[in-house]
Amino acid sequence: MSEPIFDKVALIGIGLIGASLAHAIRRAGAAVHVAGYSPSAEQRAVAKKIGFADSLPETLGDAARDADLVVLAAPVGAFAGIAKEIAPHLKQGAILSDVGSVKSAVLRDVGPHVPAGVHFIPAHPIAGTEQSGPAAGFAELFDDRWCILTPPAGADAAALEKLKTFWQRLGSQVEVMDAHHHDLVLAITSHVPHLIAYNIVGTADDLSSVTKSEVIKYSAGGFRDFTRIAASDPTMWRDVFLNNKDAVLEVLGRFSEDLSALQRAIRWGDGEALFNLFARTRAIRRGIIDAGQDSAAPNFGRNVQKK
Amino acid sequence: MSEPIFDKVALIGIGLIGASLAHAIRRAGAAVHVAGYSPSAEQRAVAKKIGFADSLPETLGDAARDADLVVLAAPVGAFAGIAKEIAPHLKQGAILSDVGSVKSAVLRDVGPHVPAGVHFIPAHPIAGTEQSGPAAGFAELFDDRWCILTPPAGADAAALEKLKTFWQRLGSQVEVMDAHHHDLVLAITSHVPHLIAYNIVGTADDLSSVTKSEVIKYSAGGFRDFTRIAASDPTMWRDVFLNNKDAVLEVLGRFSEDLSALQRAIRWGDGEALFNLFARTRAIRRGIIDAGQDSAAPNFGRNVQKK
Repeated sequence: MSEPIFDKVALIGIGLIGASLAHAIRRAGAAVHVAGYSPSAEQRAVAKKIGFADSLPETLGDAARDADLVVLAAPVGAFAGIAKEIAPHLKQGAILSDVGSVKSAVLRDVGPHVPAGVHFIPAHPIAGTEQSGPAAGFAELFDDRWCILTPPAGADAAALEKLKTFWQRLGSQVEVMDAHHHDLVLAITSHVPHLIAYNIVGTADDLSSVTKSEVIKYSAGGFRDFTRIAASDPTMWRDVFLNNKDAVLEVLGRFSEDLSALQRAIRWGDGEALFNLFARTRAIRRGIIDAGQDSAAPNFGRNVQKK
Repeated sequence: MSEPIFDKVALIGIGLIGASLAHAIRRAGAAVHVAGYSPSAEQRAVAKKIGFADSLPETLGDAARDADLVVLAAPVGAFAGIAKEIAPHLKQGAILSDVGSVKSAVLRDVGPHVPAGVHFIPAHPIAGTEQSGPAAGFAELFDDRWCILTPPAGADAAALEKLKTFWQRLGSQVEVMDAHHHDLVLAITSHVPHLIAYNIVGTADDLSSVTKSEVIKYSAGGFRDFTRIAASDPTMWRDVFLNNKDAVLEVLGRFSEDLSALQRAIRWGDGEALFNLFARTRAIRRGIIDAGQDSAAPNFGRNVQKK
């Protein structure tokens, strides 16, 4: 096993992502000491029982003090308050990063609180499951997934390189990108898909002509796929939408425009327009499977699992 | 193993569903002879190689002749033509059924061609994968899934019972429902979800500000889930939308209305409205897992599969 990259890593937040980071750091031997912070005594107790952190301090200051890498892994709406509180405790030369799903807002909210001599490099691992909390974490979550770093202008090159190495050691591929472009890319690959999933599940729940029991029984027709991401953490996702408003509204506008055209094609019986779209979308699935970003097994492999 | 239910079953169509039926019938010993029909010599050759059918006649008449159960398993847009062509060959007392995803249109298109003395009982197994063709079929496809029968008024009770027993032997649970209600239920549990999935994949494909390579690389953020059902058979799905227009437009109208409200909540920063919806949708996922209609494993079990 290679040398540890950091002496102390502080994870501010030990939900699905924070806990998975702790597991992955240990698997990779990427740090000597992992401190996990949660404001919830209950979450700390779960973390203690699982044992993925070397320490579970009760205050933000204790967690951040002496850390070589501090990772914000809480809902992004809480970042400004956390950054303000940990700022006086950050060590000179430390790297301050995060795992938030939006990046322009993180630069805006956290940037002003970063002390001189601390290297602020936001990051976003494109990985997750629909589950939440410390018990949901596992070391393999970041394997073969992409982690996007969005360093602000003039970021320290050595710190950037170190963070890149860190994520690669956890199993990820790393890309460096402008925060604004990140937010647009994620609006289409993650945020709007989640919004649509939450929305269709809500629509189904509200229909009075079809009962909830019918929706559940016949969900294998396609609906069940949407319920998975619509079971994701509500606080995290509220904060994503509040903090990536422009890009989400832009992509959502396009989605709705395209959906209106499909609606019109159905109304007027334009089978050719429908067929052409339906035939075109297969290629993207193929690209995702070829790129190792999804399973090639039918039904995501659900049928195989059953046996 | 129990007695065969039918002497000869004719499957008109040997794609994913027809081929899976053949496998499942053999596994259950539900028929003495399974005839599989495809107009495509290539598909017949694949079926012959796999060996899931006892015969692979080259004409519709040869397939249907002497069959005790004839199952239409082609895209629903082709049903009227097929029904007309097989009608003279149907045996007295035979059951004519199908596996189409819409049911009112099937009653409308097939009903007029059904000869006196033949029992017409439409059916819809709520099962499938995103793959197509004879090689995609497997015996377990219908296990624990629901099959909905939509007998027309005055349908023969004994024939209905026999078809019900048949589907149960293949591993399914059976529900009897009015065709019109079926079409509304499936609009929300299957048809609109597919339309939305096709649509978002199309929107992503058309964005000029985000490259196709970026969409593929970062698809694990949620987008990849949609690409699975957007890889389903284009002809089948074109026919579904052309033949369930009213129910699809009704549910789509509700979906768009709800999405506009979410869009407004994002624009005005109404975090409470977002949180309330996101918290509510988890319950439906739980219901689906409890009902055995999806895997409880995170990410549909993709992470487990990897190892």
